[in-house]
Amino acid sequence: MIKAGIIGATGYAGGELVRLLLGHKDVEIKWYGSRSYIDKKYADVYQNMFQIVEDICREDDLAKLADEVDVIFTATPQGFCASILNEEILSKVKVVDLSADYRIKDVATYEHWYGIEHRSPQFLQEAVYGLCEINREQIKGARLIANPGCYPTCSTLSIYPLLKEGLIDPATIIIDAKSGTSGAGRGAKVDNLYCEVNENIKAYGVANHRHTPEIEEQLGYAAGEKVLLNFTPHLVPMNRGILITAYASLKKKTSYEEVKAVYDKYYAKEKFVRVLDQEKCPQTKWVEGSNYVDVNFKIDERTGRIIMMGAMDNLVKGAAGQAVQNMNLMFGLPESEGLELVPMFP
Amino acid sequence: MIKAGIIGATGYAGGELVRLLLGHKDVEIKWYGSRSYIDKKYADVYQNMFQIVEDICREDDLAKLADEVDVIFTATPQGFCASILNEEILSKVKVVDLSADYRIKDVATYEHWYGIEHRSPQFLQEAVYGLCEINREQIKGARLIANPGCYPTCSTLSIYPLLKEGLIDPATIIIDAKSGTSGAGRGAKVDNLYCEVNENIKAYGVANHRHTPEIEEQLGYAAGEKVLLNFTPHLVPMNRGILITAYASLKKKTSYEEVKAVYDKYYAKEKFVRVLDQEKCPQTKWVEGSNYVDVNFKIDERTGRIIMMGAMDNLVKGAAGQAVQNMNLMFGLPESEGLELVPMFP
Amino acid sequence: MIKAGIIGATGYAGGELVRLLLGHKDVEIKWYGSRSYIDKKYADVYQNMFQIVEDICREDDLAKLADEVDVIFTATPQGFCASILNEEILSKVKVVDLSADYRIKDVATYEHWYGIEHRSPQFLQEAVYGLCEINREQIKGARLIANPGCYPTCSTLSIYPLLKEGLIDPATIIIDAKSGTSGAGRGAKVDNLYCEVNENIKAYGVANHRHTPEIEEQLGYAAGEKVLLNFTPHLVPMNRGILITAYASLKKKTSYEEVKAVYDKYYAKEKFVRVLDQEKCPQTKWVEGSNYVDVNFKIDERTGRIIMMGAMDNLVKGAAGQAVQNMNLMFGLPESEGLELVPMFP
Amino acid sequence: MIKAGIIGATGYAGGELVRLLLGHKDVEIKWYGSRSYIDKKYADVYQNMFQIVEDICREDDLAKLADEVDVIFTATPQGFCASILNEEILSKVKVVDLSADYRIKDVATYEHWYGIEHRSPQFLQEAVYGLCEINREQIKGARLIANPGCYPTCSTLSIYPLLKEGLIDPATIIIDAKSGTSGAGRGAKVDNLYCEVNENIKAYGVANHRHTPEIEEQLGYAAGEKVLLNFTPHLVPMNRGILITAYASLKKKTSYEEVKAVYDKYYAKEKFVRVLDQEKCPQTKWVEGSNYVDVNFKIDERTGRIIMMGAMDNLVKGAAGQAVQNMNLMFGLPESEGLELVPMFP
Repeated sequence: MIKAGIIGATGYAGGELVRLLLGHKDVEIKWYGSRSYIDKKYADVYQNMFQIVEDICREDDLAKLADEVDVIFTATPQGFCASILNEEILSKVKVVDLSADYRIKDVATYEHWYGIEHRSPQFLQEAVYGLCEINREQIKGARLIANPGCYPTCSTLSIYPLLKEGLIDPATIIIDAKSGTSGAGRGAKVDNLYCEVNENIKAYGVANHRHTPEIEEQLGYAAGEKVLLNFTPHLVPMNRGILITAYASLKKKTSYEEVKAVYDKYYAKEKFVRVLDQEKCPQTKWVEGSNYVDVNFKIDERTGRIIMMGAMDNLVKGAAGQAVQNMNLMFGLPESEGLELVPMFP
Repeated sequence: MIKAGIIGATGYAGGELVRLLLGHKDVEIKWYGSRSYIDKKYADVYQNMFQIVEDICREDDLAKLADEVDVIFTATPQGFCASILNEEILSKVKVVDLSADYRIKDVATYEHWYGIEHRSPQFLQEAVYGLCEINREQIKGARLIANPGCYPTCSTLSIYPLLKEGLIDPATIIIDAKSGTSGAGRGAKVDNLYCEVNENIKAYGVANHRHTPEIEEQLGYAAGEKVLLNFTPHLVPMNRGILITAYASLKKKTSYEEVKAVYDKYYAKEKFVRVLDQEKCPQTKWVEGSNYVDVNFKIDERTGRIIMMGAMDNLVKGAAGQAVQNMNLMFGLPESEGLELVPMFP
Repeated sequence: MIKAGIIGATGYAGGELVRLLLGHKDVEIKWYGSRSYIDKKYADVYQNMFQIVEDICREDDLAKLADEVDVIFTATPQGFCASILNEEILSKVKVVDLSADYRIKDVATYEHWYGIEHRSPQFLQEAVYGLCEINREQIKGARLIANPGCYPTCSTLSIYPLLKEGLIDPATIIIDAKSGTSGAGRGAKVDNLYCEVNENIKAYGVANHRHTPEIEEQLGYAAGEKVLLNFTPHLVPMNRGILITAYASLKKKTSYEEVKAVYDKYYAKEKFVRVLDQEKCPQTKWVEGSNYVDVNFKIDERTGRIIMMGAMDNLVKGAAGQAVQNMNLMFGLPESEGLELVPMFP
Repeated sequence: MIKAGIIGATGYAGGELVRLLLGHKDVEIKWYGSRSYIDKKYADVYQNMFQIVEDICREDDLAKLADEVDVIFTATPQGFCASILNEEILSKVKVVDLSADYRIKDVATYEHWYGIEHRSPQFLQEAVYGLCEINREQIKGARLIANPGCYPTCSTLSIYPLLKEGLIDPATIIIDAKSGTSGAGRGAKVDNLYCEVNENIKAYGVANHRHTPEIEEQLGYAAGEKVLLNFTPHLVPMNRGILITAYASLKKKTSYEEVKAVYDKYYAKEKFVRVLDQEKCPQTKWVEGSNYVDVNFKIDERTGRIIMMGAMDNLVKGAAGQAVQNMNLMFGLPESEGLELVPMFP
């Protein structure tokens, strides 16, 4: 039985980790960390857990926790994990960091986009970017996982194969993303009130959203060159789900079958990436509550562009589910253990 | 491995049965019956099942199915199951009927409220009303289960203990119910279009909803006398969930502790009925996707009434989940097998 | 041109007042008061007002305002208006208070339910309860209007005629109410975040909601005796709208036509109360954005009860619209001036 | 008093026309045409109109109607208006066609994208494309208006100035659009049921949506050359609202101030186009129920692209509101008569 601790267990991603780990037969949650609700019953913070979780919330003490568990998940604000992680902790436990602290290899880029100093750059090279379908082998041996951001997961998986195989021009990539509101977190802000979000849609973080460099770095590995792209997220009146609609110019005239073959080359054996049938557009509802990413594409011969689409649950494959998938890989468990959730519809 | 067939697999309740049975380790679905989508891939009807279910939809042929499976779930319109069920079928397989055909023992009452002739009244006495927490022992030995309606499940479980223990006056019961829109089914009707339901709430079936006699019959068993009550359902702009708010006069001044003790007497050992802590009102979101019913109550000393509240997922405990719970009992499996779903929040 | 000032112009009710008064041809808004946003452009707080309102937010200074305008609307938290109102102010301007401060005639009752001391009880007898359809004549001559609460408006209008005419037993009244989320205000609270409210329904304030004594007082006037009743509000995932479903026992067997005649007696000439056709249940969407209240009823002969239903927009007839209606009456304008808004659907 | 007839008055756009025209002081609706609801009370089809509209629905007879009214609005499926319009009708009344029949000047393009034969191409040259801010002068003298599509209105207004002034490269335009569900109409289809749309987002009509050639034609006039672009609409779980997010490469390095000046050149005097303050992203909720289009932009210096954004209410500026605006221009009324609606928030 793997003993797990969660730092930041009372945010939405933390809550989803609890839901998933409770259904994981090889894991036991030993620590529900929460800065805001110390000594409060976890089930009073998330009443869905009533009679399921009896634990109380405990402090966010990584060092102490390292002595009690085998794996620590940090679902904390940017900078927290980097400020507290050290070699001693890493020598005792495996760490899956759901924040952005170790996702970007270049310190200057991180500090520029996040506006904070990186407090433990010494772990940046060691940290493995936990996009399982791309970096599976490195993840297996890792001590420290940088769990990918929600938008980067969906964007990268949707675009990676075409870039890697040289079908599209990296300089033409535009990603228009749409996310449910749980991505904005559980903080009490007027902008996230029901009446402000409901019956409304808006773009935000236009041309300066922090997930931009993360996507660019990952797609840069695929392209074999530096990639600059446009990424525009939108807030959608729904709880869960991310949809990305990405545009790029095909390098030359390419058929449906050729593109499909490329996607299949990368994903035919991947359980959690489903390349849909021709003409089917991904819908977030079809993956809700599950670890799937549905991808598909459409070629526009008139403009020479290809439209790539991807849909997933931002809290599962975009956060907690991928964290569990990473943990499974790190501990030698079947990769889908605890993640065999059938999407819920409606 | 129990072989299961589903008649009406492409309605919302049928789809939920598929979701639950796919996660049940002792069941294999052998037949996806659907009047409307014969020969179509099931995963084309419910795209969430893409790469999970490869079967095509088959006809709604109960007799043929009886030779191939161990248990049949009928998630069909009122009257269908009653019109087709016979002794030969029942001698071969167990049947869990999710329609109302065998819920009401009195044929005349059924025919009055449903406006159709009952085609197989000979099975009415044999059929067991599958409210597991109340009729567990009879269910274990049954061949034919009348799976309770969504509103009756939530209403009965919320009120039953107080009536059984004689705390409330049966003549004063009023049930004000609120349901998500999946309860209205997947039929293409203007009234159920997104723009008609969204940002809207209304009562419907006022004083004549068909679940009224079902609730009255079940509560009548608790009261030991005929019960007449008011039941008013409302359509709420959400996919899933039922909340009932029930009112009754206390027979005498009763304390919180006394009422709590009564609820605990019935439910303390029940996994799927959670009596919430004092002052906590049930919320549908806290049980979404799970088989739980959350109940609680508030005494109003000013009026001498008690307000009883219950929340559940109409597609799980209110339909497919309870059907699986019944199947588990009928086949001697652990009652919660395949139903250990943690509610999803948000 | 009537000069108006709004104290608390940046809450949802205040914002709705602005919307309505901008469309009122005889009114000019001179003062946008806001405790939280002083010196900020009003259109930066409510961007829908961009290029429509150029004013900046000003302090909540009632005394100063009294010298500049003809009418003051106070859309402020409980206790504020009572703490600041004085004879000098009232001698200069008319005041429409949208808070609860002057709604309840009995100081002790107010202080019990609201848990605060009433700071100007000397105005309680003078204040007129601004339910226009009931108290029209007194409103015309008033200096100080207690603008009714949202739930009390909908509840009282739905029940009043039957009680006044002695058709129902006051001791049996139960009001089950459902409200959109704008009723909870624009304060940044976790409970009102999009992800907490969406796909969810719950009761709140069970047996102790502050609108209870207000409804009881108004219905008491109709009944000619003290009324105690149950009132249970629910939070519904929609922005606007209140639906009440009320239950009472008929004193004797009464026909549809008899009840209809009673409603018509009170409302046939009322522009803003629409008694729907038989069998039509009120829906909140049908009155959205307008000052209408839709009412109807259903007799249940089986139980001898009548179910009364009412739907309105909580921000219009339940707050700002009724405030404007009161102002119109006070200033001798046509009662529906500025309120001729056709409900928006969908 | 202008007498107006509406063909297709029971669709969502037709219903919105009714709402707007009821608030227009110079117009009287004489004919509520509806293929589906002939002889039914209009207020039974749209209950929000109860006691406001007493008329019954009448047949969709354009010729007959031409003798009774001054202006006809056709809110009908593609092909209907073209199949029935003739010189006699046009000699008697002005026609505002809300369908696509006269929007595209090139018959072959129309027939290719819409898949139907154009039945009255003889009026194509005469018909004026009713985008008021662009074609104001021609509209004033027109007999036949092709009322623009919802997506084309929002897209064209957001992009037109930059293209006209030569700031952006027409070959690089990509429009990613998001629409509320009322755009899908009131037809009873499974895809538009509440449970299918709610908590979901998807792209549709990818690379083949019929509004593409309409947008291309209009932007082509601005560019002075043929424009090919990508247009991808998405269905968003909300009733109303369109948001477009458009991307294009700047021809050269351009400052915020330079772009702002261009937008202001075109829109500073336009009542219904609001160029937002710097850094404010348009939100559909801020224009709901009104005739405004909110536009803004963001320059991404890293990629050399500009992101243009526009938000409007698809049923108002995107359909009925613009139709009324066109009517006002055609009849010499103030352009904003009947359209002074303040956006409703929340």
